[in-house]
Amino acid sequence: TSSRICERGADVAVCGGTHGNELSGVYLVRELLKAKDIVMEEEREEPASVLMVLANPRAMQQCRRYVDTDLNRCFTHATLNGPISDSAPYEMTRSRELNAMLGPKGSPGAVDLVCDLHNTTANMGLCLILSLACLFQRQMPDVPMRFIHFDVSSKESYSLDSVGKHGFAMEIGPQPHGVVRSNIYTAMKDGVQHMLDWVRLFNSGTIFEAGFVDVFTIVKNIDYPRDSETHNITATIHPQLQDRDFLLLHPDDALFQTFSGETLRYKGNEPLYPFFVNECAYYEKGIALSLARKNTVAYHNMAFKVHS
Amino acid sequence: TSSRICERGADVAVCGGTHGNELSGVYLVRELLKAKDIVMEEEREEPASVLMVLANPRAMQQCRRYVDTDLNRCFTHATLNGPISDSAPYEMTRSRELNAMLGPKGSPGAVDLVCDLHNTTANMGLCLILSLACLFQRQMPDVPMRFIHFDVSSKESYSLDSVGKHGFAMEIGPQPHGVVRSNIYTAMKDGVQHMLDWVRLFNSGTIFEAGFVDVFTIVKNIDYPRDSETHNITATIHPQLQDRDFLLLHPDDALFQTFSGETLRYKGNEPLYPFFVNECAYYEKGIALSLARKNTVAYHNMAFKVHS
Repeated sequence: TSSRICERGADVAVCGGTHGNELSGVYLVRELLKAKDIVMEEEREEPASVLMVLANPRAMQQCRRYVDTDLNRCFTHATLNGPISDSAPYEMTRSRELNAMLGPKGSPGAVDLVCDLHNTTANMGLCLILSLACLFQRQMPDVPMRFIHFDVSSKESYSLDSVGKHGFAMEIGPQPHGVVRSNIYTAMKDGVQHMLDWVRLFNSGTIFEAGFVDVFTIVKNIDYPRDSETHNITATIHPQLQDRDFLLLHPDDALFQTFSGETLRYKGNEPLYPFFVNECAYYEKGIALSLARKNTVAYHNMAFKVHS
Repeated sequence: TSSRICERGADVAVCGGTHGNELSGVYLVRELLKAKDIVMEEEREEPASVLMVLANPRAMQQCRRYVDTDLNRCFTHATLNGPISDSAPYEMTRSRELNAMLGPKGSPGAVDLVCDLHNTTANMGLCLILSLACLFQRQMPDVPMRFIHFDVSSKESYSLDSVGKHGFAMEIGPQPHGVVRSNIYTAMKDGVQHMLDWVRLFNSGTIFEAGFVDVFTIVKNIDYPRDSETHNITATIHPQLQDRDFLLLHPDDALFQTFSGETLRYKGNEPLYPFFVNECAYYEKGIALSLARKNTVAYHNMAFKVHS
């Protein structure tokens, strides 16, 4: 892998509203679009260009995650390049527009770095979700930052950030979908500014110190207990687990509380780190929480290398 | 006003899912329906009957507040009894079904007491929202309970709970819409149990001690600052106000933080109590928060009398 994003300055895309009810990204990208003239002035010193994108305007208008289907699952090569009918879901059409704008995925013309902004109802703080080994190691002064790694070596990545040569999702919570909270909005604004500062330093030839960082690598998802006939959930996250993302879950710890008041316990035999605990949008995906192993990752300038 | 709900035991209706994405009520009513056989056994000693209602099943299925229009605004006499076409919004039809089931509104056949279950993203704890002077004064042991009063003397009440002879909304938060949190679910379960216990005692002739209680009476709503052209919001609740429902807001206190980082202050000249601070569903209604005066209310058995 190259140790620079590209030889000239990197092109960066910052995307909000990929899920139309995750409002921090929606309002941040709108704000950055308004302030773009000012940003451009400052940028004259630096060769990087920053593209601001509102990814799913129809879903934003309705304040829903999506109109027809989850846009952030529409960026496989098959979906982007397969046959498409006039009656295709809106997001299937929109993903092709975005691929034309930021990609084409896998091509030399693709934007160097895509930063896709998301919110979660889970108490996850600021997380970078990476499917590629990349990115900035300087910790932010005020907000602890965590790295999550989905190992997609076996299957192709389907998310918007996979359209760029490099990409990641910035995921911040807790914030209810359809609401914008000042503290979460500000953390995202600082996170994006931090990322842009890093790119600027990188492009100007700065060599960052090597070091180590913790990365949470997903092991598995756990669904809510459900009624076998209706498929309705019969329990929710236990109060002892709620809001405790990234705090170790041990075998026999409380996992769910049924609606009749019973406690169900974690039956795994390995302590793991929970995250996306009680994320709103994952009820329909059958995910009550995800579990991760914590790995230490050595980085040297840009290149990450995962060893567990 | 009568000092008893009615001469025989009161009929009570507990409604959930009036807003399809407020999940504590949805799952609590489902749970109570499952447990109904057991409840019925216990009830043989008492004359009260309890009716469990899932008010907006279509919205529940889609996990949205409503399908076509807000059901909880469809219970005026005009809406319930006016002409209706085949292409009427779903909720206009559904409100008539519910009126037939629990009302008719204003008639002697109406159910004695309607308890309608709601969630809010605001940090409001457990609140009873009353448009009629009524109800139970025994404080719950674990959960502080607040009373909110909307003075609708000038206009007719439009909410589902107005279909009963008496009615109130039980509003609990913070909980993101589309999510069920164990602590909020349990508070609602305890609140409903407390209400049913009170009705049972009341029906068996118990005279409750007279006393005083604080009631928050709405004074006005405040909208988010908005762009005059796009009507998009340009600020959200200030971090110093977020989650501080029912804590006095003084003139010149921080009210909003704009997306560019500016603080906007409360320009009223009277300290008032904020509530429904940053409620998700009220973005579209143009309400960032509501403000109330706190009144002390004397109660004597059932009857409340408001004096400010």
